[in-house]
Amino acid sequence: MVDRNTVEAIVRKVRPGGDQKEKDILAVEEPLEIRLAYDRNGVPVQRSVSVTMRTPGSDSELAVGFLYTENIISSREEIKDVSQDFSEKGGFSEENVVCVQLVPGKKIDLGRLARHFYTTSSCGVCGKASLEALKITYRFPIIPAQPVFQSRIVNSLPNILHRTQSVFESTGGLHAAGLFDQEGNQQVIREDVGRHNAVDKVIGHELLSGRIPLSNLCLLVSGRTSFEILQKALAAGIPLVAGIGAPSSLAVEVANSFKMTLLGFVRDNRFNIYSSPERIVAE
Amino acid sequence: MVDRNTVEAIVRKVRPGGDQKEKDILAVEEPLEIRLAYDRNGVPVQRSVSVTMRTPGSDSELAVGFLYTENIISSREEIKDVSQDFSEKGGFSEENVVCVQLVPGKKIDLGRLARHFYTTSSCGVCGKASLEALKITYRFPIIPAQPVFQSRIVNSLPNILHRTQSVFESTGGLHAAGLFDQEGNQQVIREDVGRHNAVDKVIGHELLSGRIPLSNLCLLVSGRTSFEILQKALAAGIPLVAGIGAPSSLAVEVANSFKMTLLGFVRDNRFNIYSSPERIVAE
Repeated sequence: MVDRNTVEAIVRKVRPGGDQKEKDILAVEEPLEIRLAYDRNGVPVQRSVSVTMRTPGSDSELAVGFLYTENIISSREEIKDVSQDFSEKGGFSEENVVCVQLVPGKKIDLGRLARHFYTTSSCGVCGKASLEALKITYRFPIIPAQPVFQSRIVNSLPNILHRTQSVFESTGGLHAAGLFDQEGNQQVIREDVGRHNAVDKVIGHELLSGRIPLSNLCLLVSGRTSFEILQKALAAGIPLVAGIGAPSSLAVEVANSFKMTLLGFVRDNRFNIYSSPERIVAE
Repeated sequence: MVDRNTVEAIVRKVRPGGDQKEKDILAVEEPLEIRLAYDRNGVPVQRSVSVTMRTPGSDSELAVGFLYTENIISSREEIKDVSQDFSEKGGFSEENVVCVQLVPGKKIDLGRLARHFYTTSSCGVCGKASLEALKITYRFPIIPAQPVFQSRIVNSLPNILHRTQSVFESTGGLHAAGLFDQEGNQQVIREDVGRHNAVDKVIGHELLSGRIPLSNLCLLVSGRTSFEILQKALAAGIPLVAGIGAPSSLAVEVANSFKMTLLGFVRDNRFNIYSSPERIVAE
């Protein structure tokens, strides 16, 4: 398995003084198929549940994080094995397939994957219905007012994320997500062309390490925060979500509903608090 | 129907000198359900095909653009009617539902929506398989070397996009997509919390106006360019795609395969050309 994060390309750079050919680095985007293997009435079944465009690397974490935050699995104990095949067979390799084998007896509901999840016939399609649907996934109580983060620590996080974002540096093409504790120590940082994938990788890493719920940590994402990011954080019990970009209206609503703290525009030693400000204290 | 692009929120702004409460503006994110209505063996059927998180506005364009770029419909002539209900009924409104009624006799293949589209059993899951799959959707020949855009015109486009991006200005929270002709005249610009949605809205607008294929236009997007953006441009016959951010490896591969011109980092009077440079001429 070689590092497949980036590839080289020859590009033509057009500048005010003329243009020239130069070597450039691109962030790799490739499909990943996530398969579930399980028993149905004693018969082994394998089913493809998702094909997502992602940046290769930490694929097992991505698969497991996706299944967890989409509510297909609810704990590490339901996973028997995670496998990925990097050998060449019949002219092509299956390194873009991750198979998650579930323990015998685990019942799964693939209907949830349909994303119709966010509509319920009783109350229509709206932000409120999406919030209601979250209450079904919601696994861990977010403890009010805990933990507390110093604003000085919050202000230090973007630099740590940026320093660790190796591929972003060279390509300008990746999103990053990182988990940090109250002292600002980095727990795990992951990059991906898809920002939801970066969050799935981070949560998948923690799930496989047996550290969920993440009730003392802050999730920082390099871009904007949307409903989907908050949903994933909520599934993992993360009380504090910070974005270097802006939050959406529905991200703020989710944060308000579940007493999560949501920060936006975390950069240049300043940030905005959109909900539950009691977790942030000035030094 | 009121303007539902933005909402106000009270936020706490944490600054080096202390913090204070201020009014802020958020980009609205709400689910949109896209329904198809059609005849199956003479019986009228209505089916939900997607729920996507989007910024309200141009919802019909989004629905039609989505169905078109996902290859569920292949021309405006297949659409009988597009409807959205803004009235309140039974305590909730259906303004987050767009129903696209197809003409009698139109056959549809919803299997394509499963996104498994990008895997084929014969060649595995890889970037190459994704490219192969595109050849099925590919509707219009991209004419080699045509049209030609002056680099001066290309450099002028980000400012036009930025000026028109009203919601982005106030919230910092939206992606934008715009279509421009060879003189740099803006055809249509749309904003959304999802960058694929902004592209669907732009293409849907042109489809409903009867102007597809868009073989003389440039598509400019405010962020990065991915496989999905190139796929949508290809479906609409757009020969030139420009991103203010970086392209992914697979975006470059799609552009190379179909002789599309792909530009990245279009800002500050400079840009990079990743494929088919013959469409760009210096002044």
